[in-house]
This record gives sequence, C-alpha cells and structure tokens, in this order.
Amino acid sequence: MGDSMKYPTGINKQFKQALNHSNRGMPLENDINTTNEYYLFNNIAVIYKKPTPITIVKVDYASNHETTIKEAYFTKPSTTDYNGIYNGWYIDFEAKETKNKTMFPIDNIHTHQIKHLSDIIDQGGIGFIIVRFTTLNLTYYLNGSKLLEFIKVENRKSIPIDYFKSNGHIIKDGLNPRLDYIKIINEFYIKGEKRRKV
Amino acid sequence: MGDSMKYPTGINKQFKQALNHSNRGMPLENDINTTNEYYLFNNIAVIYKKPTPITIVKVDYASNHETTIKEAYFTKPSTTDYNGIYNGWYIDFEAKETKNKTMFPIDNIHTHQIKHLSDIIDQGGIGFIIVRFTTLNLTYYLNGSKLLEFIKVENRKSIPIDYFKSNGHIIKDGLNPRLDYIKIINEFYIKGEKRRKV
Repeated sequence: MGDSMKYPTGINKQFKQALNHSNRGMPLENDINTTNEYYLFNNIAVIYKKPTPITIVKVDYASNHETTIKEAYFTKPSTTDYNGIYNGWYIDFEAKETKNKTMFPIDNIHTHQIKHLSDIIDQGGIGFIIVRFTTLNLTYYLNGSKLLEFIKVENRKSIPIDYFKSNGHIIKDGLNPRLDYIKIINEFYIKGEKRRKV
Repeated sequence: MGDSMKYPTGINKQFKQALNHSNRGMPLENDINTTNEYYLFNNIAVIYKKPTPITIVKVDYASNHETTIKEAYFTKPSTTDYNGIYNGWYIDFEAKETKNKTMFPIDNIHTHQIKHLSDIIDQGGIGFIIVRFTTLNLTYYLNGSKLLEFIKVENRKSIPIDYFKSNGHIIKDGLNPRLDYIKIINEFYIKGEKRRKV
C-alpha cells in the first residue's frame, strides 16, 4: 500500500489516524517493520510492533466456520507502538511522520504515551521516539529523556527541528537494515554494553 | 464479564479462542491485568497485555463521524500476550488456563510463541509461562528455560502437573497484588538485582 493508497476527499482526521494505526499509508512504519525483521532474523534484537488496539462490539461466529468481527472501534493506545529487547536492554518507542519542515507537533504523541515513555525510563529501559520529516526525508532518533526535558522546560506545542539536530541523531537510510536505530542506541546510549545473562 | 458470560451451545473452538484472545471468559487474564495495574500504579513494573491481533478488511468511516471496523478477523499472535520491564529487566510471558487436573496440553501455546520465548531468553530477557489449573485452583509460574527443556527432552504433547511442581513455582492468590509473579522472578531468578540505569 504505502504512498499509493488514495484517500477520499473530506476524510476525517480520526480515520486517517486509524489507518496509520493499522499500518497503512505510513512508509516509516514499513521501514521499521522491515528493520525489526532484519534484527530478528539475524538474532540482533527482538522488537515487534504491537497490534492496533480495538474494542470489539459484535462478533459473528456462525458463517463459514470462521469468526468474523462485524463491529469494532479503534481505541487510543495507552502505550507506544513498539517494544522489545536488545542484548538484555528493554527497548520501547513510538514512530511518527510529519510533513512539517520546521517542527514536530507534540500532539502527535498522546499524553498516555509520553507518560509511558517516562515510566519506561524510570524502570531503566531505553525509551525514545523516531520522527521522520517526510518533506525533508530526514529521520531522527530522539531519546525519551530529551523529549521529556523539552516538554518540561518549554511551553510549546511543537519541537523545532533544530532541537532534533542538537539533541537527537539522524538515522540514515540503509538497504539492510533499512533504519538502523539499534546502532544509535549502541553508540550513544549503552556503548556496546551487553546485559545478556539471566 | 469473566465467568458469567454464557456461550451458545455448539460454539466452535476458534470462536472460544477468539473470545479468550479478546480477554473474555478467562479469569486468569483479569487477575494478571489487575496485578499489572497494581505494579504500574506503585511504580514496581511496567507490564501490559498486548492488544488482540486482528486483520482489518472493511472500515466504515462515513457514519457518525466515528470510524467503524465492519469486517475483521482474528490473527494468530506471533508473540506472547504480555511484556514489559521490571527494574531494568525485560519481562515476557504467556498465560493459559486448563481444566485438566493432571497435565497441561502444550498445544495451548503456539509454536511461534515458544520460538518467541526462546528468542527472548537468548537476548537476556525473563521469559516464562503462567498456567492455571482451574479445577484445582492452582496457578504456576514455569520459567521459559524449563518449558524449552521439557519440549526438547520429552516427546510428549502435555506437561504433567508434577513437572510444574518440581520445576515451577506456585503463584499464591493475593488481594493486592492479585498474582504476585514479580515476587517469584525476584526471589528465584534475579535475586533482587536491579538493572536500572541508562
């Protein structure tokens, strides 16, 4: 699907979000999923995207011996979309795209998700966001601590791209892995330390 | 819901599984969710149940300004139901009930999920299963390593309850937290070691 999917005009914002949640129309998600598959296949890390949270209202089990969900609604996620483990380190992040060229609107990330990243950091996990400025074709890693710091200190609704430049890290496009965010974590945050052992 | 939900007779197995997946009719899941809420509220651990994986086929966005899923199917999960972090340790597990009094049928856990637990252990995470023998009202913690060992060594379709007795740990029913599985992990596996620090 990706970019090629056409939306009807006048489409409401919630539907767009819903589509994003279900992983359509967002190339960044595909890139991350591909990267995670690479990590998994090569025993580098085990990181998955969580399923889209929904509330099921009506289920039809009679037809065709296959259970069909006939009515359900998208639910606001209380956590981030991705989590897993790398060399004993708990990994947790949210990924967002913006068409904006100069800043990232914070309301792209729900309050619950920001609280969740804060919880994760308190527990000793690696929490962060990946933000792609699609028009500029730039993808940034921003550590959770830096995101929380910005929100705490600044009274602004958007994070300027300069903040990403100064406090984050560019994730370069690659062939395989497509978006090597583990490299950033390894280089800048855990410095190669392995916590494997139970 | 829990026990009080009535199923029509002649209901197919897949539907029952689907209901279990969506957290109805399984008191063990409610106990674990309550426990996780306790852990979260008291800053002990951050552990969530993943949403039920589904494949969305048809979405109606026109009616009522609310996006409605009109056709979707349950998908086999490729990972376990629960994961999160405790004191820097990555936690990952699956929870199952059985009415059987003497053994736990292994096919309750998908091959993908067993492979996933193995991956997690390889990465230095804490992977395990929680199995409740409902008729006996006994809930066991069985470490992933012991589950994998059984599958590797024994050519059997079920794990006898004695194996749980010898290699697992009873999780006692409590008021709050309801099922303190973190206590087991702490006492027997990580011995109080904190890995908080990033």
